[in-house]
Amino acid sequence: MKIDARAEAWATLQVLGIAPRPLVALLRAFGGPEAVLRASPAQRRAVVPAAAADALAAEPDRDRLGATLAWLAADADHDLVAWDDPDYPEALLEIGDPPPVFYCLGRRELLARPGFAIVGSRNATPQGAADAEAFAAALSAAGLTIVSGMALGIDAAAHRGGLAHAGSSIAVVGTGPDRVYPARNRDLAHEIAARGLIVSEFAPGTPPLRANFPRRNRLVSGLAHGVLVVEATLSSGSLITARLAGEQGREVFALPGSIHSPFSKGCHKLIREGAKLVDTAQDILDELRVPRMRAGVPRRQAADDAVLDAHQRTVLDALGRAPVAFDTIAERTGLPAQTIAATLLGLELAGHVAGVPGGLWQRIE
Amino acid sequence: MKIDARAEAWATLQVLGIAPRPLVALLRAFGGPEAVLRASPAQRRAVVPAAAADALAAEPDRDRLGATLAWLAADADHDLVAWDDPDYPEALLEIGDPPPVFYCLGRRELLARPGFAIVGSRNATPQGAADAEAFAAALSAAGLTIVSGMALGIDAAAHRGGLAHAGSSIAVVGTGPDRVYPARNRDLAHEIAARGLIVSEFAPGTPPLRANFPRRNRLVSGLAHGVLVVEATLSSGSLITARLAGEQGREVFALPGSIHSPFSKGCHKLIREGAKLVDTAQDILDELRVPRMRAGVPRRQAADDAVLDAHQRTVLDALGRAPVAFDTIAERTGLPAQTIAATLLGLELAGHVAGVPGGLWQRIE
Repeated sequence: MKIDARAEAWATLQVLGIAPRPLVALLRAFGGPEAVLRASPAQRRAVVPAAAADALAAEPDRDRLGATLAWLAADADHDLVAWDDPDYPEALLEIGDPPPVFYCLGRRELLARPGFAIVGSRNATPQGAADAEAFAAALSAAGLTIVSGMALGIDAAAHRGGLAHAGSSIAVVGTGPDRVYPARNRDLAHEIAARGLIVSEFAPGTPPLRANFPRRNRLVSGLAHGVLVVEATLSSGSLITARLAGEQGREVFALPGSIHSPFSKGCHKLIREGAKLVDTAQDILDELRVPRMRAGVPRRQAADDAVLDAHQRTVLDALGRAPVAFDTIAERTGLPAQTIAATLLGLELAGHVAGVPGGLWQRIE
Repeated sequence: MKIDARAEAWATLQVLGIAPRPLVALLRAFGGPEAVLRASPAQRRAVVPAAAADALAAEPDRDRLGATLAWLAADADHDLVAWDDPDYPEALLEIGDPPPVFYCLGRRELLARPGFAIVGSRNATPQGAADAEAFAAALSAAGLTIVSGMALGIDAAAHRGGLAHAGSSIAVVGTGPDRVYPARNRDLAHEIAARGLIVSEFAPGTPPLRANFPRRNRLVSGLAHGVLVVEATLSSGSLITARLAGEQGREVFALPGSIHSPFSKGCHKLIREGAKLVDTAQDILDELRVPRMRAGVPRRQAADDAVLDAHQRTVLDALGRAPVAFDTIAERTGLPAQTIAATLLGLELAGHVAGVPGGLWQRIE
């Protein structure tokens, strides 16, 4: 990408590691990432707690920032996507902690497509991998972009199936966007970079760190309208992804298998807990009502009510012109607290609502 | 059994084929099967519609009645169980149309044990048959009596597993209790007659008639607290048994399998529709809370409130001393109409409630 002042400011904020919540307040108060960085410590302290304000006063790691900007500048398809981008995925704003900035490599336009996640065990059976690839191919052919975590086994098979058709595939990685992990997926990573999209919330150069992989899982489900678990043992990380997906309001699907296979036990547990059992890709398309999905995820446009989702409308309707408390919104909408918090964040970013002192919320024009 | 006047009267009523509903009214009005047969046509017409009253005036098929009585008299373990027997199974009274009389061959005391049905395809896979036998053995060892339909495949395997442990097995057959169908199950039928129980609502001598087999299915689930479907194609009769079981308020369980096996498709359909997916026999025991089950099904005792089940208590509580309409009971209890109808039948047979003119119901002492 071509680096401009805004991109540099976002990269700086990412390298500084500002938490989403205070960052929302700062962006609202000052208008944009450059203005947030330009504001004085005193001005920032008027908006957010001192700890968050002071974090911005620190000097960013120059090596890291330099490497990030160099990576972004190195190629036209190296990219940075931030909250104020019109193509920041709507679906991601619904999750509890959407990354303010992420990096991507490949076909950025895939972010606007309806996503569907397919995950499972790294050491899957050959049949499990074949099933993952076949389901991914069928769903990709139906227009869904297959999202997974680029691990070995089911993830890799899902990406291959996705790449085979129009929906293509997004790999959310737990390293910087410039690193390939595991090494055995090198060829696949290059194919995804060329014909799909690699997404990372970690700065270029970030090595594979154990702590970063669970964070990655919330973006896999966050970028998707539903999640299919193909094979999973009872200790598989895929069960965590499925749990996150459920918390994010995503539909969870699981493939059954023999009661004698340890790789089906995790899927069976999910089904007992409410995941939908699927026999065919059509089962998933039926459940997602895919004709609607094919139209694509609505783009965010601050002034256009038509792109609001159902929760956003409900919450906006519950807000009068006078400021109201969070609990009042909860009472009026009947929505779970987490949904309201996420919805308010989305509305705040889109300029529809504002927080006011005393923890109150107000609708704005 | 030793034939007495009461047994002969019940056999006569069975051969005459009186429908359950008018029969309840007649038994209530006249006190027992012999009195029902002794009553004059005019007396009967005062209690039930003319068609039902006249059916009793007909001469029973003497050959058939003779053969029935001869079969009953032929052996000590040839038996007849009727509504007024204290060991008529409580569970059967809960179904929409419990048979007023049925015949049995073998260990009649198994009727008092908690039953669990295992059913599935006739042309099951070897793995499916092995699974059916293993689940049946584990549940039988835990004290459940395995109920099935003595068909080939899953049914036969379930009976074998049940016979291997203390719970033993009940076969509900679609022929007379003296016939074996299919012929390949001859050895199994003899084993069940010796160590388990064969149950039939059809008179001795009744050949395998296609029309009788679906009726048999409602007794398989009716005698059970839950039903496990092991393998079933989408056109399997086991899906009908599962549907009946659900309508009878039984818990339905299904074994998952490969999405590529036609013998798992029916099970997967059931799971999608709400059946519980099971991996192990323990999953079933947990769901049925089997320690409670082990205590055995309560015997029916007309005067003892303690043996009433939850629905019976609810319905009795909803009935005042004044007669009330069916709809009023529905309103007060919130129970489905079918449940109320079945519960009222059970209460009526046990002497707790009575129907009064105008379609009203009244609690009696």
